[in-house]
Amino acid sequence: MLRDPVALVPEPLGVAHEVDRITECLRRRAALDDRCQVENRDGQHTANIATYSREVVDERERREAQLYVVDKLADAGIVLTPEEREGIEVVDFGLSRLVETGLQLVVYVNTDRYCAKELVLRPGQTCPEHRHPPFEGTPGKEETFRCRSGIVYLYVEGEPSREPACRPPPGTYTVGREIELRPGMQHTIPPGTLHWFQAGPEGAVVSEFSSTSRDELDEFTDGNVRRT
Amino acid sequence: MLRDPVALVPEPLGVAHEVDRITECLRRRAALDDRCQVENRDGQHTANIATYSREVVDERERREAQLYVVDKLADAGIVLTPEEREGIEVVDFGLSRLVETGLQLVVYVNTDRYCAKELVLRPGQTCPEHRHPPFEGTPGKEETFRCRSGIVYLYVEGEPSREPACRPPPGTYTVGREIELRPGMQHTIPPGTLHWFQAGPEGAVVSEFSSTSRDELDEFTDGNVRRT
Repeated sequence: MLRDPVALVPEPLGVAHEVDRITECLRRRAALDDRCQVENRDGQHTANIATYSREVVDERERREAQLYVVDKLADAGIVLTPEEREGIEVVDFGLSRLVETGLQLVVYVNTDRYCAKELVLRPGQTCPEHRHPPFEGTPGKEETFRCRSGIVYLYVEGEPSREPACRPPPGTYTVGREIELRPGMQHTIPPGTLHWFQAGPEGAVVSEFSSTSRDELDEFTDGNVRRT
Repeated sequence: MLRDPVALVPEPLGVAHEVDRITECLRRRAALDDRCQVENRDGQHTANIATYSREVVDERERREAQLYVVDKLADAGIVLTPEEREGIEVVDFGLSRLVETGLQLVVYVNTDRYCAKELVLRPGQTCPEHRHPPFEGTPGKEETFRCRSGIVYLYVEGEPSREPACRPPPGTYTVGREIELRPGMQHTIPPGTLHWFQAGPEGAVVSEFSSTSRDELDEFTDGNVRRT
């Protein structure tokens, strides 16, 4: 099932560094990892990370992503309950290129009036272009991104920046007005506005405050992307 | 204008410790404090903190409270912009007993759909009992408290706890179902529900996620309390 990992990586995107980091992360979190009921053949996780040939995130990949989130949030001073750690969402948008195009998130609360999440991104990881459409008589999700750690580059509708900090990964991207968010900086995105975002070289933690979240309704510009 | 500070302090509430802490805080933040355009007679700020005789929070007291917030948030890994630091709200609920009954807050965003704040409490400081009434066709503010650092004891409607951790300060308090929130723990308060809260001995930082906030509409159980 696994093909040659080197040949299948389209761009490096700091993958080697990422593997080193995750290996270290796994070592330090052995106790948590022990609960992961997956195959653990020698070197398997390294191959998985560098391989973009599968159709979904497997259990090992999901677990590694969750461990990364736990570490990044702890570094940012953010405490999760054990249940929240187990429930960290790992989204590969149906592309099976998680390290390149993906998102990890913790949903604190999502009522029929408001929602709060932490978004966690790996170095250079991109959340693909999408918008939040109207639903159930509302204008659709309005959201505020507040950077907690690292840097996140947000791209929205408007005059494209002439020297953007990021290149989008393969796929369809149409908006390019760059907003750089460093810790303590925030930006509010109106409903229906196309946007995508990419973390800087250190990864990023972003608090999202919003109206009610209905992720399954998100409309992606690239027809191959889906919110699974 | 200033009366004997000792005679006017109804309960100690760790005031001496608080003054030590703030003195240290002031020393470390001399640069920020320099911008404070108030009188700085020797020992003045100590007298102010222990004095409950004035009708409003004065500039020095407000500044000290803001410095406390900056430190507490920094300790919790939360970064503020310089503008946010200048805009930290200090609320004494019209009682002029800020260290005992008061609240400090940073409002990140408050749209007509959602709101996000950080609430910061001094050791043992209490936010008095209130509820959020309906307004403009909405059921009123629904809010989720998530503890970030320290401990906060939240009291809501329901069977009163038999051995509550806190005593309310002087005033009218009618609800006593205790919910202890430690870092990573959260609780959602439905609209219209009476509630009050008090920080543990280390103070507390609490993230508040909610529907739209209209603080001026808050209804307090104690007729002497007002949201100024």
